[in-house]
Amino acid sequence: MKAQIITIGDELLIGQTIDTNSAWIGAEMSRLGFDVWRKLSVHDKREDILESLKESSGKSDVILITGGLGPTSDDITKQTLCEFFNTRLIVNYEVLSMIEEMMRRRNFTMNENNRRQAEVPESCRVLRNGAGTAPGMWFEKEGIIFISMPGVPHEMKYIMTEHVLPELRKRFTSQVIIHRNIMTYGAPEARLAELLKGFEVSLPEETKLAYLPAAGIIKLRLTATGSDRKFLNGLINEQVSNLYKTIPDLIYAENEESFEIVIGKLLKEKGKTISTCESCTGGRIAEMITSVPGSSKYFKGSVIAYDNSVKTELLGVPQNLIDKYGAVSEQVVIKMAEGVRRLLKTDIAVATSGIAGPDGGTDSKPVGTIWISVISEKGTTSEKLVFGSDRITNINRFSVAALNLVRKQILSE
Amino acid sequence: MKAQIITIGDELLIGQTIDTNSAWIGAEMSRLGFDVWRKLSVHDKREDILESLKESSGKSDVILITGGLGPTSDDITKQTLCEFFNTRLIVNYEVLSMIEEMMRRRNFTMNENNRRQAEVPESCRVLRNGAGTAPGMWFEKEGIIFISMPGVPHEMKYIMTEHVLPELRKRFTSQVIIHRNIMTYGAPEARLAELLKGFEVSLPEETKLAYLPAAGIIKLRLTATGSDRKFLNGLINEQVSNLYKTIPDLIYAENEESFEIVIGKLLKEKGKTISTCESCTGGRIAEMITSVPGSSKYFKGSVIAYDNSVKTELLGVPQNLIDKYGAVSEQVVIKMAEGVRRLLKTDIAVATSGIAGPDGGTDSKPVGTIWISVISEKGTTSEKLVFGSDRITNINRFSVAALNLVRKQILSE
Repeated sequence: MKAQIITIGDELLIGQTIDTNSAWIGAEMSRLGFDVWRKLSVHDKREDILESLKESSGKSDVILITGGLGPTSDDITKQTLCEFFNTRLIVNYEVLSMIEEMMRRRNFTMNENNRRQAEVPESCRVLRNGAGTAPGMWFEKEGIIFISMPGVPHEMKYIMTEHVLPELRKRFTSQVIIHRNIMTYGAPEARLAELLKGFEVSLPEETKLAYLPAAGIIKLRLTATGSDRKFLNGLINEQVSNLYKTIPDLIYAENEESFEIVIGKLLKEKGKTISTCESCTGGRIAEMITSVPGSSKYFKGSVIAYDNSVKTELLGVPQNLIDKYGAVSEQVVIKMAEGVRRLLKTDIAVATSGIAGPDGGTDSKPVGTIWISVISEKGTTSEKLVFGSDRITNINRFSVAALNLVRKQILSE
Repeated sequence: MKAQIITIGDELLIGQTIDTNSAWIGAEMSRLGFDVWRKLSVHDKREDILESLKESSGKSDVILITGGLGPTSDDITKQTLCEFFNTRLIVNYEVLSMIEEMMRRRNFTMNENNRRQAEVPESCRVLRNGAGTAPGMWFEKEGIIFISMPGVPHEMKYIMTEHVLPELRKRFTSQVIIHRNIMTYGAPEARLAELLKGFEVSLPEETKLAYLPAAGIIKLRLTATGSDRKFLNGLINEQVSNLYKTIPDLIYAENEESFEIVIGKLLKEKGKTISTCESCTGGRIAEMITSVPGSSKYFKGSVIAYDNSVKTELLGVPQNLIDKYGAVSEQVVIKMAEGVRRLLKTDIAVATSGIAGPDGGTDSKPVGTIWISVISEKGTTSEKLVFGSDRITNINRFSVAALNLVRKQILSE
């Protein structure tokens, strides 16, 4: 069961539009058990579209096409499909009356371009578009299914959800593919691979492991492929529990859960509140925490103490500690955490002080150095880490590291 | 001058990762004058990668490849490139010592996987990766250039910016393409297009105008194409000054300058300091300001007053104002700005209070409502805006609107 996605549109190739359609379609088709074996983007250009259709034929069971169905002159998908399937455009009166109705409702008058939207290749089956004017089209040729849809994401999703996915589910239900994502933090990819060498070797042949790193977090994706869903589910569950046994300290969540979601759940569960005191992270930790809906339940606020005067005057960090150890030091970051916890009256507080770069590093404290401190009823934990030289990457890494220390502190209570 | 992009990785095909790399590369290559005629995504699978390389040969001048260069067993791009170019992997000692240095700094020990990162195909030219461990690789075969880069976006961008784009610019430069970006804020795309109707009609045929909207900001890109750089520069300058005449209030910067960079320049120029007091934006404004290197020169800090107790106790917002008008009101947001300005002793302060969503809206204050206040020596300016229903989009829109109000306040002084 192989599927291919073809997205049509100049805007995709010159990078003016990021192709989110094919990611969405890829996820949905994988869920149905299809192997989406390739994705292709081409210009709104007759020869390129024809070539992509020819190339695909014979290698895929289903070919999903988006784009080029709009009403303007640069949209040529329909004519090109006619050429490929050796058919011609005819007016579909059901589509026409739907468009007329839609225009009436929006108080627009019909013009030639709107009428042209109701023309479809004679040999296709029309898939009603409940979210726009360009209908979807279903073709079959030599046992291969070709589906053409508009490129507007919510229109494409309407047609996929209402027509395409249900019909494909009915017709192809042999192979089952199951994915499970395990989120890890604390070991770089190479180290993680070393730790999981034995685990990988002993994986049953139906399962595959992939490493997906992003901003210090590595997502491990286990995929099981076969025909028996129950059996595969059992296999995956067993391998997930093996993973937990192999790297217990590195796994912080499953599926796509971020640190801020994990921490939010833990804080709500335990009825605790949190505040942050940020120097080098400049509000990034607070921003991550508050990106979660409902975070006002446990997040009270922050003091961003970028300037040392804010550290001393507002948070009560003794000036002599800064003079003696520097602002980027364990001594100072602990006082920052204590200060914000007292000031904002929270159960837990986390503070950061570091050098995000590109300037400001020294031999003993290079750019990328950070001190983090977490304080709660149970006590204080501090940690020093050193990352790279890119400012934005550092700010992100610092913030993720801080949230991980918060998580560990809550779990240890 | 034809280019093709191949992105390698299962995660792209099953839709777990949205392919932003190829959009970025497409935009950069178009800017150089290349016709990016197709983009292809394939599995981490030997045969599929080989087939995509074979298909591409002969149809493109440059083939840009990302992904599959990590240190783990599912990363097979390097071996497959060796097979395609009929060469073998050898250790590159320059890359090795760079990796060793990087590991030392982060206090990690080298393992077999790290060492493997330093292996490169013998026939390639190595492109130093200043942002990670996997180097880029430059191959030439029968007049076609193949460039392989890691899939981690900031590593790919480093290699493209430092090595690939400058070299391609040198080697392929018949046609001159000049771009100028004018940053606008304050009018949605349809309104902007209406305002610029006359301007567009009178554009000389060598120039083109494109609208690139993102998070409330619309970038207008003027492109002039031809053979005489001096002539084209003159054309573009003239059109830019026409733009300034047509929409003077909407233009806030040129090129890719963000609000935070514009504000940073203004504050440094005037020797003023700033603080923020954020409720619904949760630190996003501070994060934007501090994303700029050197922002410690003018940014002193923030109070994130998520909980009302922080507003009243730390910032001195009278409880009766919150009771009478609600936390999302002009009265309260002004007191927040005054409070943080007094507490952090800055020249300027900006405060936000709003409803980011998805819950918490009422009939009179729906989700997406925000009050912003900016206070300086000169006085106080407040503004109420209403955006949509998506939490993350709202937080971004709120923050951009707040920075724009700061900019206007500084300029009016």
